[in-house]
Amino acid sequence: MSVTKIHTIKVEFGDCDPAGIVFFPNFLRWYDAAASHFFQDCGIPDWRDAEKTHGILGIPVVDLQTRFVKPATYGDTVEIHTSVIEWNAKTFVMKHELKRNGELLHEGRIIRVFATRHPDDPSRSKAVPVPEDFREKCS
Amino acid sequence: MSVTKIHTIKVEFGDCDPAGIVFFPNFLRWYDAAASHFFQDCGIPDWRDAEKTHGILGIPVVDLQTRFVKPATYGDTVEIHTSVIEWNAKTFVMKHELKRNGELLHEGRIIRVFATRHPDDPSRSKAVPVPEDFREKCS
Amino acid sequence: MSVTKIHTIKVEFGDCDPAGIVFFPNFLRWYDAAASHFFQDCGIPDWRDAEKTHGILGIPVVDLQTRFVKPATYGDTVEIHTSVIEWNAKTFVMKHELKRNGELLHEGRIIRVFATRHPDDPSRSKAVPVPEDFREKCS
Amino acid sequence: MSVTKIHTIKVEFGDCDPAGIVFFPNFLRWYDAAASHFFQDCGIPDWRDAEKTHGILGIPVVDLQTRFVKPATYGDTVEIHTSVIEWNAKTFVMKHELKRNGELLHEGRIIRVFATRHPDDPSRSKAVPVPEDFREKCS
Repeated sequence: MSVTKIHTIKVEFGDCDPAGIVFFPNFLRWYDAAASHFFQDCGIPDWRDAEKTHGILGIPVVDLQTRFVKPATYGDTVEIHTSVIEWNAKTFVMKHELKRNGELLHEGRIIRVFATRHPDDPSRSKAVPVPEDFREKCS
Repeated sequence: MSVTKIHTIKVEFGDCDPAGIVFFPNFLRWYDAAASHFFQDCGIPDWRDAEKTHGILGIPVVDLQTRFVKPATYGDTVEIHTSVIEWNAKTFVMKHELKRNGELLHEGRIIRVFATRHPDDPSRSKAVPVPEDFREKCS
Repeated sequence: MSVTKIHTIKVEFGDCDPAGIVFFPNFLRWYDAAASHFFQDCGIPDWRDAEKTHGILGIPVVDLQTRFVKPATYGDTVEIHTSVIEWNAKTFVMKHELKRNGELLHEGRIIRVFATRHPDDPSRSKAVPVPEDFREKCS
Repeated sequence: MSVTKIHTIKVEFGDCDPAGIVFFPNFLRWYDAAASHFFQDCGIPDWRDAEKTHGILGIPVVDLQTRFVKPATYGDTVEIHTSVIEWNAKTFVMKHELKRNGELLHEGRIIRVFATRHPDDPSRSKAVPVPEDFREKCS
């Protein structure tokens, strides 16, 4: 059973489109915030400090899949339930379930890597193995 | 061989995150614009007029998958190549390839439906069969 | 002394630009959310219900001014302090002060109207006099 | 008579809110893009190169004012007419007029500075005098 953290979002008028429902790229914006909060809630330092301790700059996305079950709209308060459902050597898979009053509205599976600054070019980044202590704290 | 339409995007400073690369929900925002331009470029009326002629309000997303190949950054001009790669009874699959100077940076497959106003509740929408004339114009 | 309501925002990575600070249109997005929360916190029904009771659809902006004091960045938790500082016959002026640990980072003054559906064309809106009971609840 | 450059925007469905009109923070997003295009159209290097030649990192906003004349909606193609209407020792004022078929819909006046990296702390920035050659090229 993996650790799950919850990040709460109030859906605002400006998050919605002329159909009156959430403009779908906003789900991804919220999942990105939920990913950072997940790691911090598990005791991982934020990415600014993680660079000093582990050389980790952030967690770029390599692949994502989402499924739309029911629309959300402004006035809704939704909960995003986030966990890491798979740890690989260099990648990990996060699952996000977005619920309103316990009912699933949308879900995403996002594959990410831990990135460090590229040794030959500080403006580029490079995937590194998942730090063992990060994995332990988040499992 | 399916019809392909190209939508060009200039990547702006404000589309990028502190890592200096496109904040990924923006790819989805651009694919949504590319989807509308695709239909209009194929001769389909825009959604305001399509409601009058076909009762079609828009094309909500039911599922999406994307793959991140290389980052894009501000100053880039990118082309989104869009086509419908699968037509089903009630759904269709759009493919978007985002390229810079011909090189693939990102791609998405998005499953959508054509939606009409729900007969019992005008504030809700309902999937309808793909209109035959739309399909012909876009294949 | 006018009623002040506080709306709290966590600044996310994706709210920031390549300079590492909040991309400024996001301040306006947050002030728009703060405006809706202000009215609801004062006991005004949300805009969906307000249409039924008062014919009010929303509060479009007619003019805005903002001042940038210090940048905000991801990881910050900021408070937006909102009040109506001026009530006119058909317009009102909202003031938003965005603070981090009590220190002012950004502020905005936004002039808005209450809008109702245009009698001759339901797709357009029309400013109406400020409802007296709304003004009383929010002063 | 100051130099004016035009930046064209197609208003997309996802730029609009449940009232069916442009969600107003997007005007600011477009003005920010128009500001960068203005300088490049005047022959100023982009901010990445300007750091090497002039130590200039970008043009942070210190103050902005906008006026809403008429709404814009999806399907519209709008032109943003941009010029610098005032040059001061350390600040400059940009004016943006957003027009549809020549009709003014929205306008903004944005005060900015040229910023360089802070000598004592590379993560901070610092306003510098307007470079004389930039001013000449853009007047």
